[in-house]
Amino acid sequence: MEVIMHIIGEKLNSSIPSVFTALKNRDAGLVCRMAQQQQAAGADYLDVNAGMFPDEEAELLVWLVRTVRTGSDLPLVIDSPSPAVLESALAAFQRPEARNQKPETGIKRPVLNSISLETERFGPVLALALQYNADVIALCMDDRGIPETVARRLENAHKLLSRLSENGISPERVFIDPLLQPVATGDENGLDALLAIRQIREMSPSCHITCGLSNLSYGLPNRRLLNRTFLPMAMLCGLDAPILDPLDTQIMDTLTAATLLLGRDEFCGEYIEAFVQP
Amino acid sequence: MEVIMHIIGEKLNSSIPSVFTALKNRDAGLVCRMAQQQQAAGADYLDVNAGMFPDEEAELLVWLVRTVRTGSDLPLVIDSPSPAVLESALAAFQRPEARNQKPETGIKRPVLNSISLETERFGPVLALALQYNADVIALCMDDRGIPETVARRLENAHKLLSRLSENGISPERVFIDPLLQPVATGDENGLDALLAIRQIREMSPSCHITCGLSNLSYGLPNRRLLNRTFLPMAMLCGLDAPILDPLDTQIMDTLTAATLLLGRDEFCGEYIEAFVQP
Repeated sequence: MEVIMHIIGEKLNSSIPSVFTALKNRDAGLVCRMAQQQQAAGADYLDVNAGMFPDEEAELLVWLVRTVRTGSDLPLVIDSPSPAVLESALAAFQRPEARNQKPETGIKRPVLNSISLETERFGPVLALALQYNADVIALCMDDRGIPETVARRLENAHKLLSRLSENGISPERVFIDPLLQPVATGDENGLDALLAIRQIREMSPSCHITCGLSNLSYGLPNRRLLNRTFLPMAMLCGLDAPILDPLDTQIMDTLTAATLLLGRDEFCGEYIEAFVQP
Repeated sequence: MEVIMHIIGEKLNSSIPSVFTALKNRDAGLVCRMAQQQQAAGADYLDVNAGMFPDEEAELLVWLVRTVRTGSDLPLVIDSPSPAVLESALAAFQRPEARNQKPETGIKRPVLNSISLETERFGPVLALALQYNADVIALCMDDRGIPETVARRLENAHKLLSRLSENGISPERVFIDPLLQPVATGDENGLDALLAIRQIREMSPSCHITCGLSNLSYGLPNRRLLNRTFLPMAMLCGLDAPILDPLDTQIMDTLTAATLLLGRDEFCGEYIEAFVQP
């Protein structure tokens, strides 16, 4: 089966100090530039997050969505644990008459980041996904919290895909997130993540699998090295929608090389285009 | 099972122009420095090759072995397709009285690079390995040449391990080489290599698996990027004895990161030692 990678650009996140400041000052220029730079660098989706402003998250996320829209036509990954905040952001950039319609050919749906098996989240986010025809990032967690074993991650992934499918959201519209934990907090966390990705992929050939690569390297030096070393291993296991910094040329070069090494670059075309000087 | 990586330094190879010149001029200083640099950079074995001098290969390899020995105590990987050349080199650095004896604790045996299922090679190299108590790199090829499929690589690996074992050389002393082919000559060659490594590892948990990473990138630009992107994927599949350039700091950093991500670096100790500035 042909594998197409979906790069989710992580830069428009309020936990990044420069973005925090830009949001605080409503600096549309910087936000717009950051969207355009990520698109030019190869992002297929842009994650947008205003979670560091708990008192005005909805208002700021609406502003962020509208501002990004002026600079980029990439589909957005709307990033908030709150269904109410997600709804404000969805309403801000989707004309009401477009709701419940199939998107035009070639236009990708927005993605809600995220749904999970948590009781307070599953129902409301599902309702939004159906109402606004949005795809979902689905975290492998339930009311018991983040799973501690590969087996429970797999079990949660299975439940999420089943319950979403029963409700009309097919696996092709779901980005399963196995919830990487930092290797700094557990020697086995990297390997467990890889095993979880592999087992989820074996269970579902058609869902997307996503993860925030930088979660893995949290608390350690030389984080970009860890992120880009993990990427090819995770791609081999079945990851197809990494959340990463597309402005990091080394990780994007690694992606190009891994694509070739995994037999997904006919006649080395993309690789040669990237690295042969004209 | 604990996995220990065995790094085989590839630099002392006559196909590298500076080494070719050093061999031609019997430049002991350069050869010695290159051995010491590789050891300091983390090599566990040093490959030695004089194959670019067909008329004086044996003589030059003997000189190379003796010269390297003055600068490094690492075990050598003696690299020649010719059993006669291998024997000259073995005789040059192993005292005859040491033959057929178990090596002292902590001293690694030399490795013959290589044996294969080819009729002209199997018997003579096996005899040398037994006589000189040497380990072997075993190429997955037979009289039909380099296999074109993963299945035939696996079949050849199985035959090699069986026939060597029947003759007293246990899998722990065998470094199976699945014979990577350049991705430039076939889109699937990278993926096939990974699948072959994985299947060989599933078949034999105790053999070593080796390969020359740079074979893969032959003919393409930015070869080091391809080599270091392949390494973590191959380690995940079961490679434990890569032949590489230990003076390439980026590939060695990738190795340190991959070791952590695969759960083989307790408390991130080696990673932190490598990357935290004191």
